[in-house]
Amino acid sequence: MTNLILVRHGQSIWNAENRFTGWVDSGLSTKGKNEAKLAGELIRNQNLIISFSYTSFLTRASHTLKIILDEIDKVNLQKAEAWQLNERHYGSLTGLDKEETKINLGEELFFKYRRSWDMAPPKLNKSNKYLSSFSKLNSKIPTKKIPLTESLKNTYDRVIPYYKKKIQPNLLLNKNILMVAHGNSLRALCKHLFQINDKKINLLEIPTGNPLLISFNKDISKIDQAYYLNKKREKKLFFGH
Amino acid sequence: MTNLILVRHGQSIWNAENRFTGWVDSGLSTKGKNEAKLAGELIRNQNLIISFSYTSFLTRASHTLKIILDEIDKVNLQKAEAWQLNERHYGSLTGLDKEETKINLGEELFFKYRRSWDMAPPKLNKSNKYLSSFSKLNSKIPTKKIPLTESLKNTYDRVIPYYKKKIQPNLLLNKNILMVAHGNSLRALCKHLFQINDKKINLLEIPTGNPLLISFNKDISKIDQAYYLNKKREKKLFFGH
Repeated sequence: MTNLILVRHGQSIWNAENRFTGWVDSGLSTKGKNEAKLAGELIRNQNLIISFSYTSFLTRASHTLKIILDEIDKVNLQKAEAWQLNERHYGSLTGLDKEETKINLGEELFFKYRRSWDMAPPKLNKSNKYLSSFSKLNSKIPTKKIPLTESLKNTYDRVIPYYKKKIQPNLLLNKNILMVAHGNSLRALCKHLFQINDKKINLLEIPTGNPLLISFNKDISKIDQAYYLNKKREKKLFFGH
Repeated sequence: MTNLILVRHGQSIWNAENRFTGWVDSGLSTKGKNEAKLAGELIRNQNLIISFSYTSFLTRASHTLKIILDEIDKVNLQKAEAWQLNERHYGSLTGLDKEETKINLGEELFFKYRRSWDMAPPKLNKSNKYLSSFSKLNSKIPTKKIPLTESLKNTYDRVIPYYKKKIQPNLLLNKNILMVAHGNSLRALCKHLFQINDKKINLLEIPTGNPLLISFNKDISKIDQAYYLNKKREKKLFFGH
């Protein structure tokens, strides 16, 4: 069996404050750190040899990965950090309180920005106070690749090429892989892996800190089984599965 | 998942010569060594962390284990050798050619000795030429435990207490375990694990060198799945499964 284990990072401080975070580098909350530790325990109990790990440029994901690797006694595991696995960029919504934004925009537009497949919020204004906090992050990304806003489709269009180029070849070598990423970068990857259509993808909500184990057949052409390791918390894989 | 991987040793020289072997310490044939290597490759491809290994006092099993551990880069894995996992003792049939024996005994008695649940062949005669070859083996076993013949039931009555005392506790610690043993000691263990009744157990033929992976639920009360790793060779688990 060849397995891909996907983990959404634990709760960040801005998650706890219910703000649109996107590319802002908000750290893990205490709850988030505990979620990461539990994810590590669940993974350890699988007794799987994991050969590679992947995460984003954002601290909440790389810190979650670090806590997990510590838990499974694999602190020296090969790690790749890729901006392509970053959270979706929320454009002008970045930093805003979600409840306030819902009132300001109205439910319909709010929902479209959050859950539609190909509608991006307005671009981040160049005077936005959070823009400067991206500079460290952006310095490591080719300038023309830096987004000012993204739809889920835009996120998909960077996650999937990265997956195909960097991750899939290691799965084809029959290596188990751990990836810690974000609600939307994982949603994009699951859309690809489980062939979820553009309309249904908005129903997919990846839970934080509950590892999703995906077992492939030998040539990675088929998923043999997929389930959350904390089965008590998420009984169903997701809608229809 | 907690896994128990059972492997029947590769072909021994006496297997190749079609003789009743039992407790005679016949080494692996070239074919047997190749079978062991293939078993190791199949196990390696599972990417499982294996924490303990068990084998018998007989070289064909411990050598098979050694070849497998070499193949999975685990030469230093903790190994337990137990006489309780030895092949069934064939009594006075030991060393005899199977075809000749079938003619001498007649098919019915021959089949009863080989495949009945609780009928043992006559005891090994104390002047039997193979008895001396057991001395090294027997020196490590409490005298009153040394058999002179065994039915499958007798084998079961030493395998299962050993399994319950030494192996099951490690499974309960959520550790993956590898066991390399023999046609009849594995048949006995499978009778217990799969709750096969006394009449049907004679239908169970464990293949050489094809690892049987058994996945348990958390408290080892239930088998979640079980299959041979070389699925092409043994498609069905066994009768009815």
